[in-house]
Order: sequence, then C-alpha cells, then structure tokens
Amino acid sequence: MSASGPIVLTGDRPTGPLHLGHYVGSLKNRLVLQREATQFVMIADVQALAANAEDPGIVRDNLLEVACDYLAVGLDPGLTTVFIQSLVPEIAELTIYFLNLVTVSRLQRNPTVKEEVRQKGFGTRIPAGFLMHPVSQAADIAVVKAELVPVGQDQLPLVEQTAEIVRSFNRIYAPVLVEPRALVPAEGARLPGLDGKAKMSKSLGNAIFLGDGPDEVSRKVMSMFTDPGHIHVHDPGQVEGNAVFLYLDVFDPDKPGLEELKARYRRGGLGDVAIKKRLVGILEDLLGPIRARRREAAADPAAVLRLLRQGTDRTREVAARTLADVRRAMRIDY
Amino acid sequence: MSASGPIVLTGDRPTGPLHLGHYVGSLKNRLVLQREATQFVMIADVQALAANAEDPGIVRDNLLEVACDYLAVGLDPGLTTVFIQSLVPEIAELTIYFLNLVTVSRLQRNPTVKEEVRQKGFGTRIPAGFLMHPVSQAADIAVVKAELVPVGQDQLPLVEQTAEIVRSFNRIYAPVLVEPRALVPAEGARLPGLDGKAKMSKSLGNAIFLGDGPDEVSRKVMSMFTDPGHIHVHDPGQVEGNAVFLYLDVFDPDKPGLEELKARYRRGGLGDVAIKKRLVGILEDLLGPIRARRREAAADPAAVLRLLRQGTDRTREVAARTLADVRRAMRIDY
Repeated sequence: MSASGPIVLTGDRPTGPLHLGHYVGSLKNRLVLQREATQFVMIADVQALAANAEDPGIVRDNLLEVACDYLAVGLDPGLTTVFIQSLVPEIAELTIYFLNLVTVSRLQRNPTVKEEVRQKGFGTRIPAGFLMHPVSQAADIAVVKAELVPVGQDQLPLVEQTAEIVRSFNRIYAPVLVEPRALVPAEGARLPGLDGKAKMSKSLGNAIFLGDGPDEVSRKVMSMFTDPGHIHVHDPGQVEGNAVFLYLDVFDPDKPGLEELKARYRRGGLGDVAIKKRLVGILEDLLGPIRARRREAAADPAAVLRLLRQGTDRTREVAARTLADVRRAMRIDY
Repeated sequence: MSASGPIVLTGDRPTGPLHLGHYVGSLKNRLVLQREATQFVMIADVQALAANAEDPGIVRDNLLEVACDYLAVGLDPGLTTVFIQSLVPEIAELTIYFLNLVTVSRLQRNPTVKEEVRQKGFGTRIPAGFLMHPVSQAADIAVVKAELVPVGQDQLPLVEQTAEIVRSFNRIYAPVLVEPRALVPAEGARLPGLDGKAKMSKSLGNAIFLGDGPDEVSRKVMSMFTDPGHIHVHDPGQVEGNAVFLYLDVFDPDKPGLEELKARYRRGGLGDVAIKKRLVGILEDLLGPIRARRREAAADPAAVLRLLRQGTDRTREVAARTLADVRRAMRIDY
C-alpha cells in the first residue's frame, strides 16, 4: 500500500466482467492513482445485491471476474488495497448511524437515485435498499476516510450527499470524519459503445470485454458502426460520430498518423475494413498482455481470493479505527 | 441461559430509567419468560440514537440505568441474555440485506411508523433511520432467530413486517431464518399514569420510577388523581377511572379486601388519603426489595457493564451463526 498521498476510494459492482469502457473510464486512472495516492478499490457486492436481490448468484459469479480484471490491467495488490464490501461489516454499521442524519425526502430528491430508479423501472416499488444507496455509499467512503472519490459527472450528487452527511456527523458529534471531494476525470474518459451509443455497457450488448479473445475482439470491431453514408471505398466518409474513429481517438498512440488517416477517410478512398483492421491491431496491442495476465490470474482462483482477503483485512483495520472514532464521538464506546 | 424453550427477543430503548409502567407491561412478564424460554433482552441504543441523533449523551447515560433496573427487578444474567444493540454489528449487516427486501412505500404505510412520525412531529423531515426502523427491528429479531416477540397491541405491525421480510428472505435465498410470532400480553398489562392518563411515561411526567425513594413514591401517590367529585370523606366516591383504584387493581394482592374497600369508597366514608396510604404500603412492598437491589447494582457500574459484555458476547456467537447461514443462503460466503 502506498505510504503517502491522499486516500482515494473507488470500486465496481460485480455484475459482469469489466470492459474497455471501464478501462478508459476508471481502470487507467487507477493505475496512476495507485502510485500517487493511498488507493482503496471496493468490489461492491452489497450494492450489486441491491439491484439483484432475487438473483444473488450473479454477484458471486462476477466477483472473481472483476478481481481478475483488476490484476489483468495492472492493479498491484502491493500498491492498491482491493476489498470485498460485504466482508467489511463496519460499513453496514456506519450506514445505520448515517441513516439518522439524512431525511427520506432528501434521498428522494437525489438526482442519481432518481435517474437509477427511472432506469431500473421500479415505478413506485422502490426497494428501501435502493433509496438508501447514497447513504451506504457515504459509509463506503467515510469508513476509510477517503479524501478523493473518482466519479463520473453523473455520480457527483452521491459525493455531495456524502460530504453533507459527514458535515452533519462532524457538527453533531465530533469532527472525526473526513469530507471527501470528487475527482472528475478529464474530457474524453467515456468510451461509446460499439454501436456508437453514448455508453459501453454489458446490458446494451455493445461492449468489448477485457477477457475477450483475439477473434472475439476482431469480430466485434468488424461489426462496428461507421458512417452509414460511406458505402463504397471511394465515397467521402464522415469522421465525426464514427465509432471507429472515436475509438482510434482514444487508443491510437500515433496521433499524427491518425490525423492523416482521418483526412484520407474524409476525401474518400479509405475503406471501413482498413480503419477497422488498424483498430483491431491497436486494441490487440493493449488487450494482448491484459488477456495473458487475466488468464494467469483466472487459473488460480484460490490465489485471487487470498489477495482479496488480504486487502479486506487491511481495509478492516482502517475501518475498525474509524468506527472506534465514530463510537467515541457518538458516546457509544462502552 | 435457559437450555430450552422457544427463543424470545424483547428489549428497551435506553432513553430514561424504567418505571412501574415498564414493570407491569413487560418486566414482570420477562421474569416468567426467563424460566420458560431462551430469552434475549436487547438494550436498543442504536434505536434510541435514531430519535436522539442530536443528543447522544442521553443514550449513554441511560444505558446503565436500564441495566440496573433489569437486575433490580430480578432479571437473572444466568437465565436471560441481556445485550447492547450497537455491540452486535451483525444486526447492522442483516438490516442492510433486509433493506433490499422491502419497498419504501411499504415502510411508509406501516401503521407503527406512521404513528411514531406523527408523535415525534417530524412532518416531512423524517430521518431515513426512522423510516427504516421496522427493518432494523426485523434484523434484531431475526439475528437471534427469535420465535416469539412480546409486544403491545400497537407494536403488532412491526412483528408482521418482520415475518414478511423473513418470508421474502427464505423464499428468495434459502429457508434459514425463523418467522417470529407476536406474544401479546393479557388485558390489564398497561398501567395508566399518575394523572390517570392512558400511559405512564417519563416524558409525560406521570411516572413512578423503579429507583424512586420511599418519600418520592409516597409524594407521587399522594398527588394522584382520584374522583374529582369526592371532596369530603363522607361523600360517595367513584371507583371507575379512579387512578388509585386502577393501581390497586394491578398491585393489591388481597383482592377480597380490595373489593370491600371499593364498596366502602362508593358508599362514602372512606377518604382518599386512606386509600393512597394503602397503595403506598403495597408499592413499598414491591419497590423496597427492587430499590435495594438497584442500589447494590448501581454501586458497581463496572460489574454491570461486565455482565452486559458477557451477554453481548453470547448474543454475538448466536448472531455470527445466523449471519453465516445468511451469507451461505445469499451466496456471499466467500
């Protein structure tokens, strides 16, 4: 674990293996943060259960998948503390205490909650656990006294809610908790789906997974949307909104070469197959080593679980210290 | 701890020392249950904090008071397991899992919650912890796999809510939890206040506490409401609705003698002072030994806390077994 730098908390719900969207949106950033900060990465199985209460098998099956993805991209257990949410009961305890510090109507007004309720189609049958999600997230963050929380723009209200709860706690009891700030990634950190839609997502079926084999990656890229008006090789093509170029913008390390390619595509004379093959090659350069490390990790699930246990133990030590502070502040340190 | 009999969970929020209303309404019943059942008694400090979030000192100060009251009335730590809610984090864990199994609107419709929200005057500013109260109570009950829950008529919806959540859990995951039944006390188990109002309560200022000294008890009884039309000793008096007779009905062991007294009071010629003195004597017979044991317990708070710790440890063993079942059922037993 990095000895210095701000404490950072981030994580994923284990509802499916991770994909290139995760890589661009958060995993890449974590590789930087693990050297510059004290980074905790939470596998949020409890949160995942809230959305999959009736089908808990999904969560279990994907927990190891996600852990293998972490190791595959280069999260280093010596630098980053990866832990399993359900094995840190201090989070549940802190959630219960935090629930007293926020009103039901405040939670109902939370934009992230409103949006997720709409997406899940709960209607009026909102599970209580779902409404409480911002409170349990506040506990995730506060239990390790995280100072920075990397989130997308759409998750900003959750960090604001956390800061609000922490301020209430510190005001009412004693100033023992840390008010977190959001760390919003730079522009361009969101990868569109293969279909050009705004978001790459497993449920939309438009994702390249980190564990996909070379043939799978090639097949998926070949099926990508380009410019629907670009029918013959000699037709002028459009680069803007063309998913293949959006991907090349993100992944192609040769920026001058890419600009030249775009110019040729615009003029006409450059076929979709050619640009797709270029993308396949570039993705293969990235995914090849990831895939190899992933296979290695997946071959020994017991070792992966052992790493998760070690990270969880380290997190529990931190969480126990926080809860001791919390109990003392609340005067329930009998 | 009783080796057999059904598992029973009951308890109190430590918001003040216990009074005669508690004795009649629940403590007496617990003295029977500790011989016939496996009884857990919870000091519900987390619940008390929900209603006193801004003033946690109240909860701490009253925790030992309540524990001394328990020992004073004759709860035997060898027969009854008394524990502190906040020191059993398994309850918080189970609460979080249960929150996924109940909808927000179901909680908002809970009659006990509605009534308490009205009483506390929260208006639209209902703390989330308050709305979640039935869920956390379900966890209190389920964590020890209680089969019976002694409650007043007004608390029945909470036990029904628990049974509902347990049924959902057992249906979705695996049948590992126990559906509890309510144990509603017989008629007459509710003591009116000194002012004749429906309920004896600290906040109404109409209570005789178990720790009150003889002079205090005498003074309080002498101030009790009787029949406002009974002005002179020779006036005929009314027995119905007369708080002193309501108390004699509950506490006077000599029922034929009491009937004779009532007849004399009705005819006229029996003064209020006389019946009050009789009540003082009877209460003193009850409270004298309780007061002595209370003083003895209060003289050694460290010993009381030690007993609470022992009970809490025993409860945690049971709770840990329940959570192991729960995790296995939910497939999060990594």
